[in-house]
Amino acid sequence: MAYDTTNIFARLLRDEIPSYRVYEDEHTVAIMDVMPQGIGHTLVLPKAPSRNLYDADPESLGVLFKTVQKVAKAVKKAFAADGVVVSQFNEPAAGQTVFHLHVHVIPRFDGVPLNKHSGEMEKAEVLAANAERIKAALAE
Amino acid sequence: MAYDTTNIFARLLRDEIPSYRVYEDEHTVAIMDVMPQGIGHTLVLPKAPSRNLYDADPESLGVLFKTVQKVAKAVKKAFAADGVVVSQFNEPAAGQTVFHLHVHVIPRFDGVPLNKHSGEMEKAEVLAANAERIKAALAE
Repeated sequence: MAYDTTNIFARLLRDEIPSYRVYEDEHTVAIMDVMPQGIGHTLVLPKAPSRNLYDADPESLGVLFKTVQKVAKAVKKAFAADGVVVSQFNEPAAGQTVFHLHVHVIPRFDGVPLNKHSGEMEKAEVLAANAERIKAALAE
Repeated sequence: MAYDTTNIFARLLRDEIPSYRVYEDEHTVAIMDVMPQGIGHTLVLPKAPSRNLYDADPESLGVLFKTVQKVAKAVKKAFAADGVVVSQFNEPAAGQTVFHLHVHVIPRFDGVPLNKHSGEMEKAEVLAANAERIKAALAE
């Protein structure tokens, strides 16, 4: 399916809407998920447009997943997580809701289940504080 | 934590135990998950040893996820899947059970939930037949 340039992540990458950015380089951006499934739930996006993994440039995946690795290690440290889940969904049947390729990076804790995506926004001050913790861990 | 060279995927990569391989190149292997969460559940492994994403060589992630992309497109085609989930778990709190880096690629279908990991092996003939379907899709 064709890429829709008005999707929320495309708009966010154009700075038309705000986001909590924790990391940015030439090809990728990492932001807080505003409806987190757990503390520190972060999303890593390539700047290049693709709907999902199906149509992504194969040559672009290395830089994308280098950022995923950086963010996974940073959220582990920032939240003293026992584990980290990395997931990527292709099409609605798989749970994809925004049609710009993105990778979920979610800290996990022993015995603590993930929240369902509630459709409710996390408080701005919580997202901002968690973003600062991740940025600090990335800077170490 | 240190890499344990006796883990099941290390042994499988050394051909000490059998597997249903659907793809192999210089750096990566794709095999059927023998306790699938759904039809066509495939695992992509780097040949290089690492416990999970934390200790993987960042430069190795490009080739790993190129194979993930190939396999995601192949299982979509092989099983006429409505979607594909890609996931990767770091440490037991995140669901990791074998401590050699691997990426799950799971076809999804509208309205069909994933199985829990049951701990029960899928029938050999089912795994073999599904492996053939994926190999055929990869060869197209």
